[in-house]
Amino acid sequence: MNDDRDAPTVRDVSDWWSTAISRVEPDVIELRGHPIQELIGSTSFVAVIWLLLRGQLPTPGQERLLEAALVSSVDHGPHAPSIAVARIAATCGIGLNNAVASAVNTLGDVHGGAGEQCLHLLGEVATRAGAGESVESAASSVVGRWRARSRYLPGYGHRFHTVDPRREPLLRRVQEAVDDGVVTGAYLRAAEAVEGELARGRSRPVPINVDGCTAVVYGELGFAPPLARGLFVLSRSVGILAHAWEETGQGRRNKGPMPPSIPPTFLS
Amino acid sequence: MNDDRDAPTVRDVSDWWSTAISRVEPDVIELRGHPIQELIGSTSFVAVIWLLLRGQLPTPGQERLLEAALVSSVDHGPHAPSIAVARIAATCGIGLNNAVASAVNTLGDVHGGAGEQCLHLLGEVATRAGAGESVESAASSVVGRWRARSRYLPGYGHRFHTVDPRREPLLRRVQEAVDDGVVTGAYLRAAEAVEGELARGRSRPVPINVDGCTAVVYGELGFAPPLARGLFVLSRSVGILAHAWEETGQGRRNKGPMPPSIPPTFLS
Amino acid sequence: MNDDRDAPTVRDVSDWWSTAISRVEPDVIELRGHPIQELIGSTSFVAVIWLLLRGQLPTPGQERLLEAALVSSVDHGPHAPSIAVARIAATCGIGLNNAVASAVNTLGDVHGGAGEQCLHLLGEVATRAGAGESVESAASSVVGRWRARSRYLPGYGHRFHTVDPRREPLLRRVQEAVDDGVVTGAYLRAAEAVEGELARGRSRPVPINVDGCTAVVYGELGFAPPLARGLFVLSRSVGILAHAWEETGQGRRNKGPMPPSIPPTFLS
Amino acid sequence: MNDDRDAPTVRDVSDWWSTAISRVEPDVIELRGHPIQELIGSTSFVAVIWLLLRGQLPTPGQERLLEAALVSSVDHGPHAPSIAVARIAATCGIGLNNAVASAVNTLGDVHGGAGEQCLHLLGEVATRAGAGESVESAASSVVGRWRARSRYLPGYGHRFHTVDPRREPLLRRVQEAVDDGVVTGAYLRAAEAVEGELARGRSRPVPINVDGCTAVVYGELGFAPPLARGLFVLSRSVGILAHAWEETGQGRRNKGPMPPSIPPTFLS
Repeated sequence: MNDDRDAPTVRDVSDWWSTAISRVEPDVIELRGHPIQELIGSTSFVAVIWLLLRGQLPTPGQERLLEAALVSSVDHGPHAPSIAVARIAATCGIGLNNAVASAVNTLGDVHGGAGEQCLHLLGEVATRAGAGESVESAASSVVGRWRARSRYLPGYGHRFHTVDPRREPLLRRVQEAVDDGVVTGAYLRAAEAVEGELARGRSRPVPINVDGCTAVVYGELGFAPPLARGLFVLSRSVGILAHAWEETGQGRRNKGPMPPSIPPTFLS
Repeated sequence: MNDDRDAPTVRDVSDWWSTAISRVEPDVIELRGHPIQELIGSTSFVAVIWLLLRGQLPTPGQERLLEAALVSSVDHGPHAPSIAVARIAATCGIGLNNAVASAVNTLGDVHGGAGEQCLHLLGEVATRAGAGESVESAASSVVGRWRARSRYLPGYGHRFHTVDPRREPLLRRVQEAVDDGVVTGAYLRAAEAVEGELARGRSRPVPINVDGCTAVVYGELGFAPPLARGLFVLSRSVGILAHAWEETGQGRRNKGPMPPSIPPTFLS
Repeated sequence: MNDDRDAPTVRDVSDWWSTAISRVEPDVIELRGHPIQELIGSTSFVAVIWLLLRGQLPTPGQERLLEAALVSSVDHGPHAPSIAVARIAATCGIGLNNAVASAVNTLGDVHGGAGEQCLHLLGEVATRAGAGESVESAASSVVGRWRARSRYLPGYGHRFHTVDPRREPLLRRVQEAVDDGVVTGAYLRAAEAVEGELARGRSRPVPINVDGCTAVVYGELGFAPPLARGLFVLSRSVGILAHAWEETGQGRRNKGPMPPSIPPTFLS
Repeated sequence: MNDDRDAPTVRDVSDWWSTAISRVEPDVIELRGHPIQELIGSTSFVAVIWLLLRGQLPTPGQERLLEAALVSSVDHGPHAPSIAVARIAATCGIGLNNAVASAVNTLGDVHGGAGEQCLHLLGEVATRAGAGESVESAASSVVGRWRARSRYLPGYGHRFHTVDPRREPLLRRVQEAVDDGVVTGAYLRAAEAVEGELARGRSRPVPINVDGCTAVVYGELGFAPPLARGLFVLSRSVGILAHAWEETGQGRRNKGPMPPSIPPTFLS
């Protein structure tokens, strides 16, 4: 190697990948500065999730709220697209990690990404309300602007349940965290204001759904919107894995979405 | 629909997908019989992982041991193939779930699957020892047979660390679980016997590595070998997500494995 | 099954998946109405690609132009993110299809998706020019609007090459197709007008790049913008497969992006 | 950078990724030594597929035979697991490349990988016959050994069709290639001998299926078994893309495998 200042150096190369998350050298593994041997057996999995994403360990109140959200989204049965893909893939002779990957891949803007988009929406409301505007007025403006773009308002509406069984436990935990001073309640108030805005002039309410509830949790906890999707991925991976494993044990090979006796319709 | 006995019926169709993991109907979500509203806020994420995979909630001792294993494998830095793929993918303008999926997909037989294969190996030793043979003799036979098939013995050897910092905390937690009567120790004894067999006649030992340690944990806890890989997937997904998110924030687009100033070698 | 009109019927089920692409029954496979036995050995792979996507076979001129675009994008070496991911994944003990999948997954908005976005842009210019506006004026308005949204204008600029070797052959084939009356030239003229707009007031031109050239081809051929990405996927899958296979033969396991002797930088 | 012989050098780094497939430098793209501008518009997509995988351009006879196999496997309708996954994924708000990736990921040992395994089997027969044994005797031994391992013999049997419409055109093209001296016929004879062996003592024959026919083609053309799967991936990606695109146009969101009116069965 010559001395030409334009020639690449080893330093140029070692800087190409840089991380604050972990330091790994022979006989050393540190996660955000914590030696891993001090975490194993003493720190919960949820606390380690927070640690890797945020840079420090969570407080007990933060950990509890994150845990509630992670538990809430683990599964929604074999008709959820992610679960269906996991089960179909599991019959094709690929590894469990591959079946999980095919399924996690489907958690996009429409299936799992709604929480991310709702967090954007609630963030806009909370930011305006934090700047002095009434939360009701903020909700009205923001909802108006989002509705002009699309008829689907992320986080609100009956997707499958009339009264989603995950809603009350999640929102109650948020209120408890507000009462305990763990979070401010800004996102909770924003979500309630949006729900109020959606109810105006309608006979049937448009309630917040689970994407909206988890968006409230992740917003209160200070996660950026894409991590609402990322955390939904960690949660749903549990159900995806369980279903892929269960399908493997049922013994069918190359399973399609329906029995072969019901062929798809041919559109001539 | 006619009465022809050969015609498919709606029953044929509804039986095509069947699960014991969850029951999802309008306003109802039950995970292994537990209403989800009773789990959110009261049950840990790790306990829910066990619940979905095994069918009932774990005992505190089982939960602690599973948690230790899940924490141990979350990350191994940007040179681990799964982490590298996550970071590269994250610069390509795809969703976080897609970057995670591309990375989880790499956790195959060689990267993450070694725990699954080690669990098969230890299971063979433990089964023979359980049938009356000495564990040392069982280890000797099984190791001999595995070595005839491949020079890589899963779960043993220096992959990167001379003394893996995850080893001692994991094996100590297993021993504590044995002392507490949570697990039998059959896999721990099998792993120690294999380590002893590998040391015979060598100047340098071939110690158990982290794949082997997690295999011991998962074997003691009664998980089938493919779930050793599945649980490694849930664990490593955390680091994968964190690294994909961090790379997104570093602002580069379309990042390759090295700086463009260092082109790949062309083999003419 | 009862007679309740609300009960699902087998018809509801068989309509759930409907396609005009293929009809598959015992002993019958028809692709867009063509029995497959009439296609095998008589119809080119590229013509079959067109057939499945568009519904009928292409003319020879259309097939030639599509083929040129597909050939142009097959590979860009091991530093392209998709190729890097394929090669890393191939060392992890997963199937070739899995390595290909992880890599194809990275062909997003920034790596492969630029052609899709450029086709949107050119389509806007071509539509306005088709409505009577001069193509130069249309280019000026559209470029102005796109530049307000992002500093990256898809399809234009030096990404790696100063003079991309794929540009001239692709644009020449488009001009030939215009001369032969196979395509109208609307997208070619739009692309040239955009290039002219970008050159105004600059000392250095901002030439159309390969994403832009393939966008011109796909636009002239009448493909919707997402299929610009889809066709890029079919093309790049060839290089992805070849590189994954080659890496498999090089014998390394669990390969990271750089040699272990160059650790990543830790940001403390 | 110091002179320590143990310190990594830039050379160590640039050798980490090495390829004979392509050379990419500013203004240069060569595929197996061919400048890409000489391939675009003059060389077929199938010939380029061969070029990248094999290192040189195919003869016309080789190209025709490869093309027949690639055309044969492009689609098998919405009940094929890969197609089902593509269509479900396409309703989830992810990119077309992501839907394709999730689907390609399912082309494992059981769905698409059967061609790879059949090529191994036929290769064993052809090798023994090439060493002097009669092909019938070779077939008998090899089939016996494979049947001892699994009841599924890859490449043979009624999977869906009684008379697969792809069989005759594929095998006829192989025979033509033998007659033209393009290939030797060793794999064709091996496949016929296996079919004969499977027929012995049975009332119903066990005919070669499409996995077996494509295995014959890829074996005659000299492709290694994993590339039988790789080439099936390139072929099936076409149908996967077409179905994902068509489903996108049908407007449903978050589609499961069946209508919601038919819930999955809960195994209590």
